[in-house]
Amino acid sequence: MKVARYKRDSDVSYTLGATLTIELLKNRPELVERVLVSSALQDNESTRYLMQLCREARVGVEQNDKAFHILSPKGNCYVIGIFQKYECPLQEGSHIVLVNPSDAGNLGTILRTAVGFRMARIAIVKPGVDLFDPKVVRASMGALFHAQFQYYNSFEEYRRQFPSQHLYSFMLRRSTPVQDIRYEEPYSLLFGNEATGLPDDYADFTKAVLIPHSGEIDSLNLPIAAGIAMYTVSSQRRRE
Amino acid sequence: MKVARYKRDSDVSYTLGATLTIELLKNRPELVERVLVSSALQDNESTRYLMQLCREARVGVEQNDKAFHILSPKGNCYVIGIFQKYECPLQEGSHIVLVNPSDAGNLGTILRTAVGFRMARIAIVKPGVDLFDPKVVRASMGALFHAQFQYYNSFEEYRRQFPSQHLYSFMLRRSTPVQDIRYEEPYSLLFGNEATGLPDDYADFTKAVLIPHSGEIDSLNLPIAAGIAMYTVSSQRRRE
Repeated sequence: MKVARYKRDSDVSYTLGATLTIELLKNRPELVERVLVSSALQDNESTRYLMQLCREARVGVEQNDKAFHILSPKGNCYVIGIFQKYECPLQEGSHIVLVNPSDAGNLGTILRTAVGFRMARIAIVKPGVDLFDPKVVRASMGALFHAQFQYYNSFEEYRRQFPSQHLYSFMLRRSTPVQDIRYEEPYSLLFGNEATGLPDDYADFTKAVLIPHSGEIDSLNLPIAAGIAMYTVSSQRRRE
Repeated sequence: MKVARYKRDSDVSYTLGATLTIELLKNRPELVERVLVSSALQDNESTRYLMQLCREARVGVEQNDKAFHILSPKGNCYVIGIFQKYECPLQEGSHIVLVNPSDAGNLGTILRTAVGFRMARIAIVKPGVDLFDPKVVRASMGALFHAQFQYYNSFEEYRRQFPSQHLYSFMLRRSTPVQDIRYEEPYSLLFGNEATGLPDDYADFTKAVLIPHSGEIDSLNLPIAAGIAMYTVSSQRRRE
């Protein structure tokens, strides 16, 4: 089977690594086109489990060293899953809204955290990094397969689809400390781009929320801010 | 000036990028040996500020395109600071203790968060990633220059130096939900390796703490767990 380096308009994406491919086979077996293995793959418990999952899902397994040179040139990967990209549209409820996220590793980490806090409904306002980029899939540790997600051309487009959300913007200016916030459901937690944050005018039509930090750093890293925000929601839930 | 790819036993390390080099010159001017610039560096406000800081610190500036090929092959970097590695030993107080951290980006992100929450005293139990690795410096966004740090051969060695710490181990087994924890000062927040976490026996001699998450993920990402832990300490402080 011929494989090509991933592109945004590809029909398929890849899970790079055995653990991630096992997550794929467990959660989205119907989407798996094929599993590629390297000739350097060792026969151990994890490999046998992988093979069992492939048999159960009737997924073909192919040894193909060339594919590893193309898709994982660093060489520490021995299993690749090829899967069809899919839609899993955002439903009613509370959401995470990422406005123009630009880093694949960050998006993957946010997905993993969101699944961890049972908040895995993600809206992405374009331009934004591609959720099916293998780097996102990998950083998510397979959490992508548990998430609902949807891209929007603008925040207004998102807003029109979900007009009743309570909006909380995590930003530095004109904002209330997160300790003083009481989230009302259904809520949307909004986060801006890694370099620029949310535009100031988001404070006009949302509740602006601050995670206080010292002046020795410009801002918290995006996944850290999102992680803390999700934690505060989740601990409010637990108290109620 | 000849430059070489960074190694753990190098005497110097590097800040890759203009913003990071500005942080270095502002916070540790006495350590800067030289600033290298690419011939593609543009003359703008940030460049003029950088040059002013170099003049004030009497640091030589050298155009050296070859150095960029060696130190930053990806090519999106136009300024490099060369600085002497230094010690900034851990003092009494509360600490973050990282047991066998293995990922440079994660360590940098933890440093940035720790400085943000005014907890920038970091103990690292070996084996552990090198704090002066340019990838750590970069991911810290310069926060390294505000931190105290020290390596230990074992946790026992750390413990002997600081016998009165209250120890809180973030781990999954035998642990109390973080919402029910009251931190006592001076505290140490302990975190294990990315892949393996802390050994189970840490629950025998420390308070084991859990950040509850769903079973759909194996664990939270290390910097996310550390960030949430630091947030919970910082919000307890604000309440008191």
